[in-house]
Amino acid sequence: MVRISLDVMGGDFGPKVVIPGAARALERHPDIRFSLFGIEAEVLPLLEQFPKLKAASTFHATELAIAMDEKPSQALRRGRGKSSMWQAIDAVNTGEADVIVSAGNTGALMAMAMFCLRTMPGIQRPALAAVWPTLKGESIVLDVGATIGADARQLMDFALMGGAMARALFELDRPTLGLLNVGVEEIKGQEEVKEAGRLLREANLDNIDYYGFVEGDDIGRGTVDVVVTEGFSGNIALKSAEGTARQIAEYLRAAMSRTLMAKLGYLLAKGAFDRLREKMDPRKVNGAVFLGLNGIVIKSHGGTDAEGFAAAVDVGYDMVRNGLKAKIENDLQRLHVEDEAQPAPGDVASEV
Amino acid sequence: MVRISLDVMGGDFGPKVVIPGAARALERHPDIRFSLFGIEAEVLPLLEQFPKLKAASTFHATELAIAMDEKPSQALRRGRGKSSMWQAIDAVNTGEADVIVSAGNTGALMAMAMFCLRTMPGIQRPALAAVWPTLKGESIVLDVGATIGADARQLMDFALMGGAMARALFELDRPTLGLLNVGVEEIKGQEEVKEAGRLLREANLDNIDYYGFVEGDDIGRGTVDVVVTEGFSGNIALKSAEGTARQIAEYLRAAMSRTLMAKLGYLLAKGAFDRLREKMDPRKVNGAVFLGLNGIVIKSHGGTDAEGFAAAVDVGYDMVRNGLKAKIENDLQRLHVEDEAQPAPGDVASEV
Repeated sequence: MVRISLDVMGGDFGPKVVIPGAARALERHPDIRFSLFGIEAEVLPLLEQFPKLKAASTFHATELAIAMDEKPSQALRRGRGKSSMWQAIDAVNTGEADVIVSAGNTGALMAMAMFCLRTMPGIQRPALAAVWPTLKGESIVLDVGATIGADARQLMDFALMGGAMARALFELDRPTLGLLNVGVEEIKGQEEVKEAGRLLREANLDNIDYYGFVEGDDIGRGTVDVVVTEGFSGNIALKSAEGTARQIAEYLRAAMSRTLMAKLGYLLAKGAFDRLREKMDPRKVNGAVFLGLNGIVIKSHGGTDAEGFAAAVDVGYDMVRNGLKAKIENDLQRLHVEDEAQPAPGDVASEV
Repeated sequence: MVRISLDVMGGDFGPKVVIPGAARALERHPDIRFSLFGIEAEVLPLLEQFPKLKAASTFHATELAIAMDEKPSQALRRGRGKSSMWQAIDAVNTGEADVIVSAGNTGALMAMAMFCLRTMPGIQRPALAAVWPTLKGESIVLDVGATIGADARQLMDFALMGGAMARALFELDRPTLGLLNVGVEEIKGQEEVKEAGRLLREANLDNIDYYGFVEGDDIGRGTVDVVVTEGFSGNIALKSAEGTARQIAEYLRAAMSRTLMAKLGYLLAKGAFDRLREKMDPRKVNGAVFLGLNGIVIKSHGGTDAEGFAAAVDVGYDMVRNGLKAKIENDLQRLHVEDEAQPAPGDVASEV
């Protein structure tokens, strides 16, 4: 049994997407038990339409919902204890649930999760990890925006957490991992990336195969299973890629509807286009994982539909089933033990 | 007449691409006069095949060529004074040429250009500006990798230079400009981006329409004419977008060759696919501009073909024709005059 708590009010469409999304995920994984948090009048009538989901769920009425545009500090002030988002997170804290999934306000979710669950021992900063479709399958990219900037030791923590997630999600023994960098050598700056590369090489981990530096175009190429960077550049990379995918889809749509021949060609090749659309479907890889807290938090896109939300629930399910949290805790503990026999990272002279 | 110096040895294919590329650009702009720098035995036999280009060019024999994988410091040591790259840059310095175009080693080109041409008065750091195809046409993104990190004042300089380039390249009076940022509010870090936003808003420039912050997906959407960021995230954005474009092209190719129906559809819609390919053709927007030096330096992709190299020459031609350098100098001078009546940027308290 996997116990999943849901912030039913989260996302652009709230219960209208979350309830049918949860029902879909339940079809695929009948061993899920849901804890649903939301405003009674909005949730219960909808829940009645999904008897199987209702039977597999416990409903908790909450007083209020966090708005999608609310500032994190305000959300925390107003919603602490009382909102569906807070209570869904707290269910992980109290042990009622193994993982929480929300399509709500990202900033508010991160702030509340930090406040409620706290970071794991040994982790200074959490990271948001996204699953990225590549030419070879899927890769994990982190941090895509939880925090801005990271020193070498924090990048090393991200590497451990991303590696553990790759082992849990892709069921690999020793995922390959790269540090995101720019190609031009010898330019000033990013000492922390170079230093993190040195730490990773020296650590010689038996469950992470450190590849070295990768560049922005290596992500889509699938050069490595895990790409590590700090949150600003990770967020820019993710959004730039999403923007480019939308842009090309738009070009394609325009090109295929321009002439009669193109339209006819489109009809004949419709199966191929459908496959392409499925490949490019952002809903398929919905569900970023907030790593480094005492509990697993899954962030779904706010504007997704039921299928997309179900994909985010699937990610949460896989993370629990494959013991993500224990994997991260193990790795951290091992690294700390090794640390004691080695100089602290700060003592190692920079390479440049 | 526009005088362009070429590093004929630069790029993965050297003269084999540069010479026919220059010949194509000359067809489009018969008023170009080229100064060609390269190794005699490799350049002259090829030049014989392009009599029009030969007539419009002065050839200068150089001793050596910079390798594509040479480290910038080594290239500078070995190639200063003697290499085709150095001499082509120096032609701008001595006044023989108005602009230099090279498909050579990016790091070496930046180092040599910095060393030979020096930064403009008032500019602390140069920036590499790329022309980015968008849903609305084209935008300029800078810095895409000249330097890593930038403080608020340097971002402000990038904004002025990018704005001047947009006026020169797109012939706009008051281009819109955004600062690249991440969406989540209230997270720690990137104070320099917030501060730069404040400086730009307060400067209230009459030739730049400051839009505010933009995110990674706004670039491809064409939300603004100019996107400003520091070199690390700019490089990551550019490479991620390039990687995604290649990835989707690969999906499309695979989908269209999978079944007989798809192949037939492809044939019928071939005209549409050709248009799409043209839209996505990276050669069309080849030619990044190295801004902030006492002279204009154009960097072509190293692996491009003759058509791509010609596009980079076109960019150089447009920059000279539209007086890019004078525009930047004017803007900088005006800002410095305004500065004197205002507190220095460092004195302004951060917003957070």
